[in-house]
Order: sequence, then structure tokens, then C-alpha cells
Amino acid sequence: MEIILKENERIDDLELNNLKIIQNKEWFCFGIDSVLLSDFAKEIKHGSKIIDLGTGTGILPILLSTKTIDTKIVGVEIQENVAEMANRSIGLNELNDKIEIICENIKNLKDKYEEGSFDAIVTNPPYKKLGTGGTNENKEKLISRHEITADLDDFISISKYLLKDKGEIYLVHRPERLVDILSILRKYKLEPKKLRFIAPNKEKEPNLILIKAVKNAKPFLKIEKQLNIYDEAGNYTEEVLKIYNKI
Amino acid sequence: MEIILKENERIDDLELNNLKIIQNKEWFCFGIDSVLLSDFAKEIKHGSKIIDLGTGTGILPILLSTKTIDTKIVGVEIQENVAEMANRSIGLNELNDKIEIICENIKNLKDKYEEGSFDAIVTNPPYKKLGTGGTNENKEKLISRHEITADLDDFISISKYLLKDKGEIYLVHRPERLVDILSILRKYKLEPKKLRFIAPNKEKEPNLILIKAVKNAKPFLKIEKQLNIYDEAGNYTEEVLKIYNKI
Repeated sequence: MEIILKENERIDDLELNNLKIIQNKEWFCFGIDSVLLSDFAKEIKHGSKIIDLGTGTGILPILLSTKTIDTKIVGVEIQENVAEMANRSIGLNELNDKIEIICENIKNLKDKYEEGSFDAIVTNPPYKKLGTGGTNENKEKLISRHEITADLDDFISISKYLLKDKGEIYLVHRPERLVDILSILRKYKLEPKKLRFIAPNKEKEPNLILIKAVKNAKPFLKIEKQLNIYDEAGNYTEEVLKIYNKI
Repeated sequence: MEIILKENERIDDLELNNLKIIQNKEWFCFGIDSVLLSDFAKEIKHGSKIIDLGTGTGILPILLSTKTIDTKIVGVEIQENVAEMANRSIGLNELNDKIEIICENIKNLKDKYEEGSFDAIVTNPPYKKLGTGGTNENKEKLISRHEITADLDDFISISKYLLKDKGEIYLVHRPERLVDILSILRKYKLEPKKLRFIAPNKEKEPNLILIKAVKNAKPFLKIEKQLNIYDEAGNYTEEVLKIYNKI
């Protein structure tokens, strides 16, 4: 298959099932947060209808496609040029029958889907509130990192609409927003059920959180063992290597 | 000073500034949660007016009395026999000019104190919701462990009343209640600012949480490095030994 690369684009090998992804080095590249989230969400049942809110490069649908059988995954991206690039990555991996990329503001998804249309949601939303730095970033970075076109409340309220009863949402975010996230999830009847902290190593504070919430579930939160990225020698821990399929 | 011990009571040496505590082995004895909370709360400013909601044996006021200068500490205990025992411990340590034990349901404290009377609150409230086990426990244990006479909302709503603007509350609880705690704190304008997870060791899930919230503060949560109680050899970690003043 012939794939035309645009200026500043490159193809990265995901070193997993021969998957590849197109990224634009001037915009943003996927990070370990997406890899950890796709692992955290691997309990999504086979045959599920899944939607990724704010898909960016399309990394989450591509990674999830290898962990689930017979699923349909929609990736929603607001930026037309980014959605177009993600769509070329889907084509490059010949995943068009499994993954659909749509260009849309997540706030408008009520016009496109009926209530309860999805079994599971994954999302790596913008981490930062409006007006907290980043003024010299380009438009693509700004929109992916800051709550410009949609904020956390928008992401979670639309999730409530899109999920069926007992449907699951998996998200990754920053620890400093934990109170916002848990309060807003509960406000929209998406009860937080599982929480995992990620730290650079066991001597450092956590800098990422993974959260699973279930629509209309009873309250009882399970906090999993903290995941440390590096061991004392500065190498990936065994668990991270396992997530990257290196052991 | 002559101290009369009652049936089933014993005097334990806290191995700290010659402090002692009377405990009734049929009721409940203080645990590591109180020790960790008193350490977590050691940043309370000298000269503060402090109140401990649900003081039990009086362990928190006694430990805090060594960490703060010129403070006045009130310990509130609903059970008359427990409050009476705590009061004897205060006398035993000659701390009567610094610590006052009162026997009261925390829900009635509005009748006793004016709004904003305290700079800081510490509390180790009952961890369990009503109707979750413990039916063969005695009354003293039941009331100290289950939300029988007051629930989390009661503890936090009265805290909002008792604290002055920018006053601080420090509490210890169980991870499975994290969503309740953070949501209720924010509901009462006590913004969670600092959170620490405690795990038995680095391979286990956390089983305790320490939370600091500040009245009318801006949202931004700092999650501290996880505290592990034991190291790989099964000994107390250096940090726990430091908290116990053993190194």
C-alpha cells in the first residue's frame, strides 16, 4: 500500500504485531500514557463497541485493536489535519474494517450517536486547564494539551451519554486533577471503581493516574499497586517491559 | 500521680518523650494510622487551636502535643467510658493545661463552639459504612469503627463549621472511600491539597490514605510519594522508623 507522507511526518514502528503509526514531529507524538492506558483497558470485552474521545494520532484505537477481538473502535479527533493523519495510519495498518476515525468536537457527539451506543470509552483528554502556560506552543499541541475546545466536564458528560448501563470508561490524567476527575465522574453517575498511580520510580511522586469508572455502579474504589516506570538502576521495571511486550 | 486502672486496662509506654497511654484491651487500641496521621499533621503551626474529632484513647492529642508548641488541643469522644479513660491518660502525662477531652457527639459541636473557632482539625473517623460487617464486635469497637453515631458527611460538615478561613483538616481513612472523601470535602469547601498513600510494602496495594484539605483554598492536589511500611526484608522502612523516632 502506498502511503504519502506530508511535511514533518514520519512513520514509527510500534514493534508490536507489525503495527506502524504516522506522527508529525512538529505537533505531538504519543507518549507512555497512551501505552499504559491501552494496557489498563485491556479487560474491555471482546465484541465491544469502543470510542476514543480525542484520539490524536489514533494510537489508542491502533493499540486496542491488538488486545480485543471482534471490536469496533471509533476515534474522535477535533482537528481536521490530525484526524486526516490518524486516518492514514489506520489505512497503513489495514485496520479500516475495525477502526473508524471521525473529525468532530466531542461535544457534538449527541447529534451523531444515540444514547447508550457504546460499551466502553477510552480517553486521554487534555490535561491542563485553560490559561496554565503553553502560550508558545503551536495550535495542534495547544488543543491536544489544554482544555480549549472541551474541558473535563465536557469529556465526562458526553461519556455518560454515550455509554450503555454498566458501560466502562478508562482514562489517563494528571494526579493534581484527581479531585476534579473523581467528583465529576460521580456527578455523572460514572462511579470510579479502579485507580492506579504511575510514578517514575519508587522514590518519586506519582505523575500519572489511570482510572476506570462504570456507569451506574455501586461505590467501592479499588486502588491498585503503584506502577513504577524505572527500577533503581534506571531501567524499565519488569511490569513496564511486559506492557511493552519486551518480555 | 496515682492513676487507678480499671478492669482490662493497661498502661502502654509510647517510647516518646516519656509519654504513656491507658488502653482497654477489650475495646480497641491505637494503631499505626494514628501515628502516621500525627506525623502527617506535624506541619500544624505552633500556637494553633486544634480539635480531634473522635479521639478514642486520646492518642492523637497526646502525640500532637509533642510536635507543636503552645497549642491547645480538644479531643472529642462520644463514648463516656472511653472519654473518661482518655482523660486519665491526659492526667497521667500531666498534659491537662494543653489538652481537654470532652464527651460529645461531634454533630452537636455547633452548640458548643462558634463558627471558625479552630485553626486545625485532625480526625481518624470510623472507616466503615453502616451494615458492613462487625456484628460480633462490642459496642466500643463498633462505634469507633462503623458510621453509627456520625458518618463521613457529618465529620466533614462539622469540620467546615469549626475551621476558620484557610484552616486545615488532616484525616486518615481507607482507599476504598477515596471518592466519598474527596467529593464530600469539596462539597463543604474544604479543598483537598495533599494526599499520601500508605502500603504494607512496595508490592502491595495501599490500605490507608492520609489527606490534608484547606478551607476555601484553590484546587490543586499534590500527591506525595507513597509510604511503604515494610521493606523487602520485612523490616520497617527507614521513613517509618523515623516517624517512630527510632533513628
